[in-house]
Amino acid sequence: MAKYVYFFGNKEAEGSAEQKNLLGGKGANLAEMTNLGIPVPAGFTITTQACIYYDQNNQTFPETLEQSVKDNLSKLESAMGMKFNDPKNPLLVSVRSGARVSMPGMMDTVLNLGINDTIVEGIIRKTGNDRFAWDSYRRFIQMYSNVVMDMDSEVLEHALEAKKEEKNAEADTDLTADDLKSLVPVFKQKIKEVTGKDFPTDPMEQLWGAITAVFGSWNNDRAIKYRKLNNIPHNWGTAVNVQAMVYGNMGDDCATGVAFTRDPSTGEKKFYGEFLQNAQGEDVVAGIRTPQPINKANKTDSTQISLEEIMPEAYNALVEVYKKLEDHYKDMQDIEFTIQNRRLYMLQTRTGKRTAKAALKIATDMVNEGAIDKKTAVSRIEPAQLDQLLHPTFDPKDKADKKEIAKGLPASPGAAVGKVVFNAHDAEVEAEIGEKVILVRIETSPEDIGGMNAAQGILTARGGMTSHAAVVARGMGKCCVAGCGAVLINYAAKSFRVGDTVVKQGDIISIDGSTGEIFIGEVKRVTPELSGEFATLMGWADEIRTLGVRTNADTPHDAKVARDFGAEGIGLCRTEHMFFEGGRIKAMREMILASDLKGREKALAKLLPIQKQDFMEIFEVMDGLPVTIRLLDPPLHEFLPHEENAIAEIAEELGVSIENLKTKIENLKELNPMLGHRGCRLAITYPEIARMQGRAIIEAACEVKKDKNINVIPEIMIPLIGDVKELKILKDEIIKVAKEVISSYAIELDYKIGTMIEIPRAALLADEVANEAEFFSFGTNDLTQMTFGYSRDDAGVFLPDYVEKGILPDDPFQKLDQNGVGKLVEMGVKLGRSVNKNLKIGICGEHGGEPSSIEFCHATGLNYVSCSPYRVPIARLAAAQAAIKSN
Amino acid sequence: MAKYVYFFGNKEAEGSAEQKNLLGGKGANLAEMTNLGIPVPAGFTITTQACIYYDQNNQTFPETLEQSVKDNLSKLESAMGMKFNDPKNPLLVSVRSGARVSMPGMMDTVLNLGINDTIVEGIIRKTGNDRFAWDSYRRFIQMYSNVVMDMDSEVLEHALEAKKEEKNAEADTDLTADDLKSLVPVFKQKIKEVTGKDFPTDPMEQLWGAITAVFGSWNNDRAIKYRKLNNIPHNWGTAVNVQAMVYGNMGDDCATGVAFTRDPSTGEKKFYGEFLQNAQGEDVVAGIRTPQPINKANKTDSTQISLEEIMPEAYNALVEVYKKLEDHYKDMQDIEFTIQNRRLYMLQTRTGKRTAKAALKIATDMVNEGAIDKKTAVSRIEPAQLDQLLHPTFDPKDKADKKEIAKGLPASPGAAVGKVVFNAHDAEVEAEIGEKVILVRIETSPEDIGGMNAAQGILTARGGMTSHAAVVARGMGKCCVAGCGAVLINYAAKSFRVGDTVVKQGDIISIDGSTGEIFIGEVKRVTPELSGEFATLMGWADEIRTLGVRTNADTPHDAKVARDFGAEGIGLCRTEHMFFEGGRIKAMREMILASDLKGREKALAKLLPIQKQDFMEIFEVMDGLPVTIRLLDPPLHEFLPHEENAIAEIAEELGVSIENLKTKIENLKELNPMLGHRGCRLAITYPEIARMQGRAIIEAACEVKKDKNINVIPEIMIPLIGDVKELKILKDEIIKVAKEVISSYAIELDYKIGTMIEIPRAALLADEVANEAEFFSFGTNDLTQMTFGYSRDDAGVFLPDYVEKGILPDDPFQKLDQNGVGKLVEMGVKLGRSVNKNLKIGICGEHGGEPSSIEFCHATGLNYVSCSPYRVPIARLAAAQAAIKSN
Repeated sequence: MAKYVYFFGNKEAEGSAEQKNLLGGKGANLAEMTNLGIPVPAGFTITTQACIYYDQNNQTFPETLEQSVKDNLSKLESAMGMKFNDPKNPLLVSVRSGARVSMPGMMDTVLNLGINDTIVEGIIRKTGNDRFAWDSYRRFIQMYSNVVMDMDSEVLEHALEAKKEEKNAEADTDLTADDLKSLVPVFKQKIKEVTGKDFPTDPMEQLWGAITAVFGSWNNDRAIKYRKLNNIPHNWGTAVNVQAMVYGNMGDDCATGVAFTRDPSTGEKKFYGEFLQNAQGEDVVAGIRTPQPINKANKTDSTQISLEEIMPEAYNALVEVYKKLEDHYKDMQDIEFTIQNRRLYMLQTRTGKRTAKAALKIATDMVNEGAIDKKTAVSRIEPAQLDQLLHPTFDPKDKADKKEIAKGLPASPGAAVGKVVFNAHDAEVEAEIGEKVILVRIETSPEDIGGMNAAQGILTARGGMTSHAAVVARGMGKCCVAGCGAVLINYAAKSFRVGDTVVKQGDIISIDGSTGEIFIGEVKRVTPELSGEFATLMGWADEIRTLGVRTNADTPHDAKVARDFGAEGIGLCRTEHMFFEGGRIKAMREMILASDLKGREKALAKLLPIQKQDFMEIFEVMDGLPVTIRLLDPPLHEFLPHEENAIAEIAEELGVSIENLKTKIENLKELNPMLGHRGCRLAITYPEIARMQGRAIIEAACEVKKDKNINVIPEIMIPLIGDVKELKILKDEIIKVAKEVISSYAIELDYKIGTMIEIPRAALLADEVANEAEFFSFGTNDLTQMTFGYSRDDAGVFLPDYVEKGILPDDPFQKLDQNGVGKLVEMGVKLGRSVNKNLKIGICGEHGGEPSSIEFCHATGLNYVSCSPYRVPIARLAAAQAAIKSN
Repeated sequence: MAKYVYFFGNKEAEGSAEQKNLLGGKGANLAEMTNLGIPVPAGFTITTQACIYYDQNNQTFPETLEQSVKDNLSKLESAMGMKFNDPKNPLLVSVRSGARVSMPGMMDTVLNLGINDTIVEGIIRKTGNDRFAWDSYRRFIQMYSNVVMDMDSEVLEHALEAKKEEKNAEADTDLTADDLKSLVPVFKQKIKEVTGKDFPTDPMEQLWGAITAVFGSWNNDRAIKYRKLNNIPHNWGTAVNVQAMVYGNMGDDCATGVAFTRDPSTGEKKFYGEFLQNAQGEDVVAGIRTPQPINKANKTDSTQISLEEIMPEAYNALVEVYKKLEDHYKDMQDIEFTIQNRRLYMLQTRTGKRTAKAALKIATDMVNEGAIDKKTAVSRIEPAQLDQLLHPTFDPKDKADKKEIAKGLPASPGAAVGKVVFNAHDAEVEAEIGEKVILVRIETSPEDIGGMNAAQGILTARGGMTSHAAVVARGMGKCCVAGCGAVLINYAAKSFRVGDTVVKQGDIISIDGSTGEIFIGEVKRVTPELSGEFATLMGWADEIRTLGVRTNADTPHDAKVARDFGAEGIGLCRTEHMFFEGGRIKAMREMILASDLKGREKALAKLLPIQKQDFMEIFEVMDGLPVTIRLLDPPLHEFLPHEENAIAEIAEELGVSIENLKTKIENLKELNPMLGHRGCRLAITYPEIARMQGRAIIEAACEVKKDKNINVIPEIMIPLIGDVKELKILKDEIIKVAKEVISSYAIELDYKIGTMIEIPRAALLADEVANEAEFFSFGTNDLTQMTFGYSRDDAGVFLPDYVEKGILPDDPFQKLDQNGVGKLVEMGVKLGRSVNKNLKIGICGEHGGEPSSIEFCHATGLNYVSCSPYRVPIARLAAAQAAIKSN
């Protein structure tokens, strides 16, 4: 028979900290503290299993539960030397939920349970404190009626307020015992009126009501929503903790408080906390009175009085306990305590939440203190949290004051403030005169790059986590909120609308690329700085990880940033961005619009020296590290002009009529460009493009090697392969050019030719592809698009809804879909290595910088991940954690 | 050691008809005829293996080959009682290529080999016919210099013509022995001048030269191109047949001819052929003289003289041979013969090519004659050939006279002639007044359906075999040529251009949907009729096949056509086409543009009775057969108006501003609609659409069952599932509606809810999907799009080139890519059946009507294929052939 109830008390507990899944976090830690000899009010935990049973059996309890609760209540009575439902020596209890992970404020709590008109008199007799007794009683009625009887708390709050007015009382504490006593029948009357039910007077009935309510609260709306948002499975259930009440509100020798064993904001090793004298725990949180600092060291002005000063014995006991706890858990703890008549009771301990900065400091300090080893330290840092250290963030307090108008996808982290502009040209013009702007577009295209670069941040109405805007912004380390469908843009009017709010060009907005929030006006920002602990911890991560970390970088600047962040090479250098600036785009357009090979080759000859120069600069920055260069990928139409004057200009240059040029542009348009004439398909049609790019890469490598003695390892990557024959044809073209170039420089040069695996068919037939490829790089952006049939630019319309409805656990463009897309990746790795067991395999989709995806890459046996420069530290840390987990 | 040479002669041969792969078709049949005791000039065959060796070993021969050829030449000499290179009794030989399958005119032949200045005198001595001897000699020099020495044949032709002019000779036959003799040194001189080489006089050198040339011809450009076009592997190689010469040109008791054992055009059982007296085989083909009918029965006018009349003995011998051959091969034969001095020699027999009509007649006749069984008869018909019987075709002779301007994809078979129009509106207006038109569009969209229906045929510049135009045209049984990139359309000027040719609105063109050809002007057409043999053979196919055949039909008319063609149900009824006609589109637009659920439900309520009526009519036509109905699939933007006046009209109806409506339409646009908000994703966002459609289907089924006592089996198919949860959510919605409807009709109704497997992820996770799906239908159009990353609408730009370059063996939208897409289908079937071993699985992509894909479906264990109505007979036949092959 399953054991549904676990007792703790008398320095001994049936459970332990290991049993979080069964006892919930709170229950497991109460048991653990009890076993450590720390003063904890006795009690018992009803397991999560009982909750699951309750959920799955039409809200009924397991058969044995009633008896077990009775038995444990008896044990509790004898441990406390008091009796439940005994007016002579009454025991009151708290009933608290406690799930496997903390779900703050999501579920219910009832305090002071077991009280009624008879018991309250017993309490008065026992404590001699009638005000405390009546205050406990009225608090109980308020909580119970709300939590268990589902009554709006406003009703009794009003009654309380009325009493305070009647008595000219400012605070609750100004009410006398008689005032409070007179409230009890008023409360009961109101409850009867609203719910139609009598308030229960039988303590046992109260107890079961509360247990039922806590179990029920697991499935209240806000709890379900919270779990969805935080990816907590619905079938975990919550435990219920029934514990003897202790009181911080029995008089001035009583207190209650919360504390952290180290500073959760800076990580500094100092005991940090707040307390309230003569108060119940809830009052600290409610913020009705201002808490005082826990010790002298935390005082910020001389009017404050610390616990250390008022109750030094209790404080010293607390210090002893916190040290014991941190020493035991080997991590910073967040603790709750109550002091009743100068005696300390611990009500909770748990791992304390902390800022990224604090996390790094605590982890490295603890290694230095010998408390934990490096692996533990590395495991303690949430990789995604590092974003806080790499980008400015909004001041949370100021954020709370500003008007949030909408929320989009957190496409590229950071916090940006600026005037709204609606096109790249305006962005550039404004930036030129020193204005800070936010570029707002339905979507961006390569033509917008200049404007994106000039803007502080980018906001798009359409497009997902791997849309053009998102990818480019991440590459630039620039804040971006993408796919915010609520934003309806009217380019003609130069304004956008969200509901009733209209934002015009020039209005200031603030966007948070880490959360997707959009605010009207300026939100204050906090600028991060990288501490020495960051470097230390990253160093440890590098020692541990086996997965390589490269970067996606298209420019020498990006490459430099990434190298500084620890990138070990470039995993994806996109060459198309090199065709946009200045005169390049003209030559590119000339190439596209040429009517024959000769015309194309003439235009390509203009591009060759430019590309070569770009590659040389990148090779120099990477100084001997491998550089994977992807040949031209996007459909040609992306490079063509759409504005009348640009078309006219080009027509004149090419010596064709505007009409003919327009027809040509129209004919190059595609219905689904993502699935169109792009990637290697372009090079199959126009091998001269691949030849030019191959020549530029190899010439650049030879020149850098010859002139600067830098040993370049170019890896030429052919995109969008669906059949090995595409690879074979283009590989042969490039090898021919490479041989010619290398011999003309009269040096030796190693280079590799490989492919992206981004078309499902290439993954399905990876064994064939591996016969020709010298390396694979999974392009999981496109692979996700094709495997799901989702356009990254259009899925923003339904994807958030899919995640909300639980159809998908996450946006698959953010976190690699291990089930589906991952199955193809695994097949690709397995098939590829079946032909070439040393095949070097990486990933260069946006997933390369996402921790859960990195863990998958490690487990699947990839050699490296490649991600945008600002994600490199995250990837290094996540790779180390993956290595630790898999051991 | 491999045996590289096989002898035949003296009524005994080392090879047989079974050995086509080794001996080539010609060689194997020469061996077979020899073994049958049929008079065949002796000879030997050098195997295809020797050719492969030659190819793979830098154009060198296997070591043993020279000796084997010598040995076999000796055998040949003794069989013929003559000697090679012996002026006293000279043996001349022919050297002919012969691959595994016939490649007419693609490779080389040399006749009369072994002659020189000395031998020619020996021939004169032996035959007493100096003109014949010199004619043979000059013919040999002409052929050899061209085939072996690679000299332009024009040079010697000119010399011959000069001689004829000099001698006032009209035909070659007017030249005397002396004239021909005098040509020999002239020829040799010219050869020396042009090639710089002496003409070889050593017969053995001539022989090896010819063998080398034949092997080399396997890799000449036209042979390579032919193989690519006809999917013949390059590594098959060709055999070489060296055979004693016999002469049809030795005098008036000689002749040569070709014949068919039955009429290849009608299939009628009559001996049919042509011959030339005193001529060499090549002359029949060359068409210099008009051949005569082979027998009296074939004479079409009294001036003709038949072989039966001139040489009755030889004719009777030929009759005996042809009967023997047909009796032996059990199929209509195409034979070549030569009569030398009244003695019959057979030079070739092979299965004769025939029209579809003849194929049916021959196959059924032969079953009735007891020659073959039904399975054999069914195997004999090329399924694709049936198109000839189902659609009008162009008269091949007239086609040859007309100007072909371009070639697109053969998207929907048939032959259409009409005036060019450039939009659906013009098509409808012209059709109204009785004009026949061809609708020419860059691509079509659902808005064009009316115009497509009004047109004789459709021509598009963009889009592949599964583009909108192609799919809709096939459904309508209407001729369509798609994706003809050479056609540059200028809508504004109402004209299109191909190269220098400009075609204006109103000009007449002819398009062939079976070949993709486009002609200027009217090409004459031949209208087919279905014979009784068609029905007989289809009946046999149905007895044999195990794979079901359903149809893709969206209207009662299509359903009727398909049923008449033998469809056993509807495998895909697309509901979106039901939203376009008349007032429906208005209600649909109202639904899309409504701003809330209430507005959408109001519009859907208008659509409900219309959809219901459509379904009722289809259920009635199908009368008890299963009908699979797919819920709304295309992105909503496809239904929206783009013209100003339509937008204005709708804006007024909905009571919104034109500006707002335009913004809304703009915001619904997608960059890649194929990967966008469509299929089940629409229904997830707007479940009310699925509810309305579910209600319409179930109400229609109930009503038809109740009122007409027709047992309807609706199968509701949810499209574009990528995760089982999508299916689960929508299934639950529909079940709820269905229960309600069925109980309101108070009857019992079986229905099924299943899904299309068309997203790679659904195939990868088919086991999960099968937990909820009551059936699977592979949507291989979309599955091909996503697996390859090819947009069916855009791939026309590069796909033909891919096939041309051999990157892909076929257009994967035409023939299922068994390697890649097929791997996903196999996974889907295996995973799906692992959960539900009786899962009913079909295919409803366009591949359901393509023979090689049908064979794959049979082998993969699918239950049925579904195809457009006009492909149903093809599918029935192909399914039967698949069953036969797999036994």
